[in-house]
Amino acid sequence: MPDMDPEEFRRLGHAVVDWIAEYRARIADLPVRADVEPGWVREQLTPALLSPGLPEEPQPLSGLLDEIDRVVVPASMHWQHPGFFGYFPANVSLHSLLGDMLSGGLGAQGMLWSTSPAATEVEQVLLDGLADALGLPPSFTFAGGGGGSIQDSASSAALVALLAALHRSAPDWQERGVDGTERVYVTAETHSSLAKAVRVVGLGSRALRIVEPSPGSLAMSPAALAAALRADVDAGLRPVLVCPTIGTTGTGAIDPVREVARAAAAHRAWVHVDAAWAGVAALCPEHRDLLDGVELVDSFCTDAHKWLLTAFDASMLWVQDATALPAALSITPEYLRNAASESGAVVDYRDWQVPLGRRFRALKLWAVVHGHGLSGLRAHIRSHVALAEELAGWVRDDPGFTLTVPPSLALVCLRVVTGAGQDADDRATRAVLEGVNAAGSEFLTHTVVDGRYSIRVAIGSVTTEFRHVRALWERLQADAARYRQNFPVHRGDPVQPRSTHQ
Amino acid sequence: MPDMDPEEFRRLGHAVVDWIAEYRARIADLPVRADVEPGWVREQLTPALLSPGLPEEPQPLSGLLDEIDRVVVPASMHWQHPGFFGYFPANVSLHSLLGDMLSGGLGAQGMLWSTSPAATEVEQVLLDGLADALGLPPSFTFAGGGGGSIQDSASSAALVALLAALHRSAPDWQERGVDGTERVYVTAETHSSLAKAVRVVGLGSRALRIVEPSPGSLAMSPAALAAALRADVDAGLRPVLVCPTIGTTGTGAIDPVREVARAAAAHRAWVHVDAAWAGVAALCPEHRDLLDGVELVDSFCTDAHKWLLTAFDASMLWVQDATALPAALSITPEYLRNAASESGAVVDYRDWQVPLGRRFRALKLWAVVHGHGLSGLRAHIRSHVALAEELAGWVRDDPGFTLTVPPSLALVCLRVVTGAGQDADDRATRAVLEGVNAAGSEFLTHTVVDGRYSIRVAIGSVTTEFRHVRALWERLQADAARYRQNFPVHRGDPVQPRSTHQ
Repeated sequence: MPDMDPEEFRRLGHAVVDWIAEYRARIADLPVRADVEPGWVREQLTPALLSPGLPEEPQPLSGLLDEIDRVVVPASMHWQHPGFFGYFPANVSLHSLLGDMLSGGLGAQGMLWSTSPAATEVEQVLLDGLADALGLPPSFTFAGGGGGSIQDSASSAALVALLAALHRSAPDWQERGVDGTERVYVTAETHSSLAKAVRVVGLGSRALRIVEPSPGSLAMSPAALAAALRADVDAGLRPVLVCPTIGTTGTGAIDPVREVARAAAAHRAWVHVDAAWAGVAALCPEHRDLLDGVELVDSFCTDAHKWLLTAFDASMLWVQDATALPAALSITPEYLRNAASESGAVVDYRDWQVPLGRRFRALKLWAVVHGHGLSGLRAHIRSHVALAEELAGWVRDDPGFTLTVPPSLALVCLRVVTGAGQDADDRATRAVLEGVNAAGSEFLTHTVVDGRYSIRVAIGSVTTEFRHVRALWERLQADAARYRQNFPVHRGDPVQPRSTHQ
Repeated sequence: MPDMDPEEFRRLGHAVVDWIAEYRARIADLPVRADVEPGWVREQLTPALLSPGLPEEPQPLSGLLDEIDRVVVPASMHWQHPGFFGYFPANVSLHSLLGDMLSGGLGAQGMLWSTSPAATEVEQVLLDGLADALGLPPSFTFAGGGGGSIQDSASSAALVALLAALHRSAPDWQERGVDGTERVYVTAETHSSLAKAVRVVGLGSRALRIVEPSPGSLAMSPAALAAALRADVDAGLRPVLVCPTIGTTGTGAIDPVREVARAAAAHRAWVHVDAAWAGVAALCPEHRDLLDGVELVDSFCTDAHKWLLTAFDASMLWVQDATALPAALSITPEYLRNAASESGAVVDYRDWQVPLGRRFRALKLWAVVHGHGLSGLRAHIRSHVALAEELAGWVRDDPGFTLTVPPSLALVCLRVVTGAGQDADDRATRAVLEGVNAAGSEFLTHTVVDGRYSIRVAIGSVTTEFRHVRALWERLQADAARYRQNFPVHRGDPVQPRSTHQ
């Protein structure tokens, strides 16, 4: 029972490539959001897969492609659609897909250097090269004593940074675990993955300190941070990690990394920068100021799988001390011992992450850098920032809308203005968002700012061009106008949006 | 700056498929293990990627393929090689690769049901179907109140099981974290990922209880477990999780799940079964006894990416209580709220794992089930078990070798017998392993059993057939004979193999 014959793979692989090419070519004609009820997919697939059960005999590929056309495509959110403006983009560029195919073809396990020297060193080289291209200081490169790794997600990057911080803060952590005095500092706008990491590592939510923003902003107040740190230390608690964000999920707010790092340094707390979405913009010199102060932090994370054209999963995490993660995470049973690891001359990336196994993820990143070049990556980012500026201008010029906060790179947060007060604006904004999503040409998500409902327009899909943003704007205007006709200066029950502070 | 034109992707995608087909066709002619020094890959890639830096302008795909041929292939361990007998297999069948390509083509993010209903429900359906095909009780299916998910690795599966166990054991864990009384029970043969999970969740190594094996075996002693549980409870400690293994990494030992689960039940400890490698064999009725007692456990993990033909990452984790993981892990900020989640009618797989984002991993598993059928999957497993039985027979018949332990499914552990005592046998076994690996046609790894060095032959590559196992055996015989000629009944300094008990 050997594997499929390679010649058969050639034939079937071409068919799959053709399917993908056709899907990507027609993607703009599909509704961006699936219009299916919970359970519909299961119901559709039950005859083939559940009742009576999984197929006994091999089936032809054409049958799988038919099922994907019949069931999967209609039940999919099309994240690569030009009208996808939700969450943050999750670029899967076709160049990155080529690299990912090669990774699967090689089928390597990169857990140790020795189990695939290429998987390890290509990753090291690319992360060194990207650190330089982003303007990170040389101390974040392997050549400079630090180094980068590809994590599955910014959530996992935050988790391993926190583990390294716990280890540095208490040398007996590996043996005795946490002791309940540890504290972690974020803001109300910090991504929920930090709260999740704090839970995972056993600290409990009581360890999470929500630092106030500076007045009139959503960014962490360094003074409030310093005060919180001081108060905790005075109370016998132990500041372990501070997480400033460059580009929050809600609104793209940017915490003042330099001042945050200085406040943290006074108490030797680890500083982890979460720049999951926005960090890649530092490839452009005009956005290099995003990284101000980053030479003072311990770890820096930005996702290639959001806005840098690389298929999930490819979250890039750099540290200034290449020994920090292995020191915290390494455990070596006999069956993983090998001469290369014991020589100390190599990086074993399993010690930079929680899972043991790891795919050759660097190939998809290499394919992106190779196929687009740095100039192409910059053009990709600049095009979306320019589109966001256009959209923000239209919003400013239309009295029926307002910017919730100033736009941040390619993220624009806006609200409908009804003239009937903030509660009415909340209702109108929500109704307009729901109308856009129901129509199917564009997809939007929301956030809540200062208790008020806000549409987020996150521009960044691999296929989004001027005309798509313009079409979104025209739809927003038309839907808002229709809402105002239906509910002229209507004052109903006040809406109570949920807090973002979970 | 839009993405590559789909027609261009069609052309380049065909070229990549052709490259993969050619690589797989010639893989048996490559040395299975890379013969490169640390730093060689970096040195080779520096002109293109580091000095002066990453390319500014887009480069043609042919250049990337050339670099992969020139640098990556010679610096790779070829895990899909027919002579790969190391660690455990990491099957990347060509069917699974087709499914993975489709996943990348769709480019979906399956973090919430609403962000890709298809990604979520296809996974639910397949995991239900596979639970049934494996012989797991219906209580592990969504239809039965439990359910399955695809994790990135068995390490992560163990981690989330432990988090669910901590939550169940102490309802204030989310708020107050761990308290130092928690205890986790394994054996010395349990995979190191359990020790890592215990470290990650903040318990420290003091929380890890190494339960003794039953006399004359490497399997957990239920009596010793019961005694350890009782002693800990009497000391005011809290048993949180017990992890029996079905098919340990070292030797394929099988813990008595039924009796272990009964002992754990007396103290309401969570039972997590790690069957990462061996569990998939339960697809064959003749190996169904592997699952004896599994109806008594809380969670069960087996990897599709080891021996079930599916590209990493695809570790399957089933639980009997579908609410257990979300109850432990869910945190919902405003920007992730949506009507489907709030209806309670859907599964949001982000709440079954630590990362937020997730790829449409079920497609590669579907492609495997579809392309091979259950009969093909069984034939794949049976062929390797039969090859292992052949090899074990040859070992038994040759006085120059001995089986370290009885073979377990497709894993054979063996030692060279020199006639000069156990220390000499250790040296000879190690020398023979190193000789085989240096020769390049096969790759082996080792373990230590009862303080003695042992070769592990893990049969299971997608391309391994009878002739490859026969060739390995002939090489082992020849190398052992050569060793005996060079060191006839030699008694040198005793070798001190490292303990497996890390």
